[in-house]
Amino acid sequence: MLQTATTIQEIRSTVRAWKQQGLTVGLVPTMGYLHAGHESLVKAAVASCDRVVASVFVNPTQFGPNEDLATYPRDFAHDCQVLEKAGCHLVFHPEPSEMYPEGFCTYVENLSAMPQQLCGKTRPIHFRGVCTVVCKLFNIVQPDKAFFGQKDAQQLAIIKRMVKDLSLDIEIVGCPIVRESDGLAKSSRNVYLNQSERQAALVLSQAVRLGQELIAAGEKDCATILAKMCQVIESTPIARIDYVAAVDGQTMLPLETVTPGMLFAMAVYIGKTRLIDNFSVAN
Amino acid sequence: MLQTATTIQEIRSTVRAWKQQGLTVGLVPTMGYLHAGHESLVKAAVASCDRVVASVFVNPTQFGPNEDLATYPRDFAHDCQVLEKAGCHLVFHPEPSEMYPEGFCTYVENLSAMPQQLCGKTRPIHFRGVCTVVCKLFNIVQPDKAFFGQKDAQQLAIIKRMVKDLSLDIEIVGCPIVRESDGLAKSSRNVYLNQSERQAALVLSQAVRLGQELIAAGEKDCATILAKMCQVIESTPIARIDYVAAVDGQTMLPLETVTPGMLFAMAVYIGKTRLIDNFSVAN
Repeated sequence: MLQTATTIQEIRSTVRAWKQQGLTVGLVPTMGYLHAGHESLVKAAVASCDRVVASVFVNPTQFGPNEDLATYPRDFAHDCQVLEKAGCHLVFHPEPSEMYPEGFCTYVENLSAMPQQLCGKTRPIHFRGVCTVVCKLFNIVQPDKAFFGQKDAQQLAIIKRMVKDLSLDIEIVGCPIVRESDGLAKSSRNVYLNQSERQAALVLSQAVRLGQELIAAGEKDCATILAKMCQVIESTPIARIDYVAAVDGQTMLPLETVTPGMLFAMAVYIGKTRLIDNFSVAN
Repeated sequence: MLQTATTIQEIRSTVRAWKQQGLTVGLVPTMGYLHAGHESLVKAAVASCDRVVASVFVNPTQFGPNEDLATYPRDFAHDCQVLEKAGCHLVFHPEPSEMYPEGFCTYVENLSAMPQQLCGKTRPIHFRGVCTVVCKLFNIVQPDKAFFGQKDAQQLAIIKRMVKDLSLDIEIVGCPIVRESDGLAKSSRNVYLNQSERQAALVLSQAVRLGQELIAAGEKDCATILAKMCQVIESTPIARIDYVAAVDGQTMLPLETVTPGMLFAMAVYIGKTRLIDNFSVAN
């Protein structure tokens, strides 16, 4: 039975009781409007932790002034159904005022070049907001493990770095991208797409597949691979590339030669909707 | 018997064992070269917690490039004597490489105007370093309470704000300034003073006392009080004022009229040594 909490106090007292019983706790931070990708995170948490907390919070500090904070899709009733079915025990659904009290001014920020790469180029304050809210959620829930999707590969790398740098005693688990049957990566923002955009959005996963095939065939030059991936995307008129990049999997800095563990990542506007996708080269 | 640990791992396993026994934990973060001020913090911790951890770590990230990181006084053997005598159970004495692993880049920072006031005017990165290392120490030790001196009033206010903003489940306890018999506030940096500087350094506590007397006598105008405090300090040729300020006790922003809870704070160079002192107006 899924329990709902809107205050930090409620989460703390529930988790404290679990810990006194010696139970382990997993956390799945989300912005809600849950899809099969989130579901897979909850299931991974259920499989390896005694109790699972999910947060559903559209975090204002990670949206820029011209981004889609106001229109970001929300459906908490449906989210609760998904969470309960996946075996989640407790959902944290705070108001922004609970998370950001009056006078709020302390942020967690990665000050390396890492957050300025890839998504950070067009979303300069995004990862500061992500680090800050995730650090807060970690402090509120104090989980043993936390689960994040590999679709947000840059976010996952920045959070792993944060956990190491701030000496947080939490294991970060990255989970594979979940896709529609035609290849489109699951995303809450897919709901923005009309029928022709939905079709056009397939260029992202097609570019991913092409990149993987080129590497499997022995291609070592990142520029060659990126050029061919871009060609696939640009073949569709309503697709506009934000970035397609080949980077180190930890630092997010560009690489010239295909290297184990590295990341190929992209962000593409399909009409007005910005979608991301990526793949990692096997270690 | 005082136990010493140099690794995060050792601290974690010791504290975990204490918590499993249901014991409460107090933390006293220090930069070492301990004096009676630090001793009073440890005693306050011993009085209200079952187990007390002190950290002795000269934190490089809170020193600017032209500050006294290299020469900051150190005497770990003596620190251990002070800690043991005061009833401390565990001292954490890490190498910088243990606290700042290769590639370290995630910081905690107060982005309001607060860290730019007072000491922040001449020490622009100081409070970012303080917040980052204190956040790390909190994550490593996971104390129930942490103890800080009111001599570093701006630091105390910024840490209280951090704890609230980042939802850290820790009670911050501010402890009164401890003074020499002639009034000089205890400071590890007092060791830098030669005999004539030691005498001149009394202007700080004299200015504090004058400010308190003026307020006790009913003076309400901060500018008048500050002018008279400055006069006292400027009467000594080798004293050079960095700042003398009247500010809100939470935000550190300037106030014109004497208000309950507000702070009068100063930093004064005595020769090359920068000393601080302050007093709060009763609530």
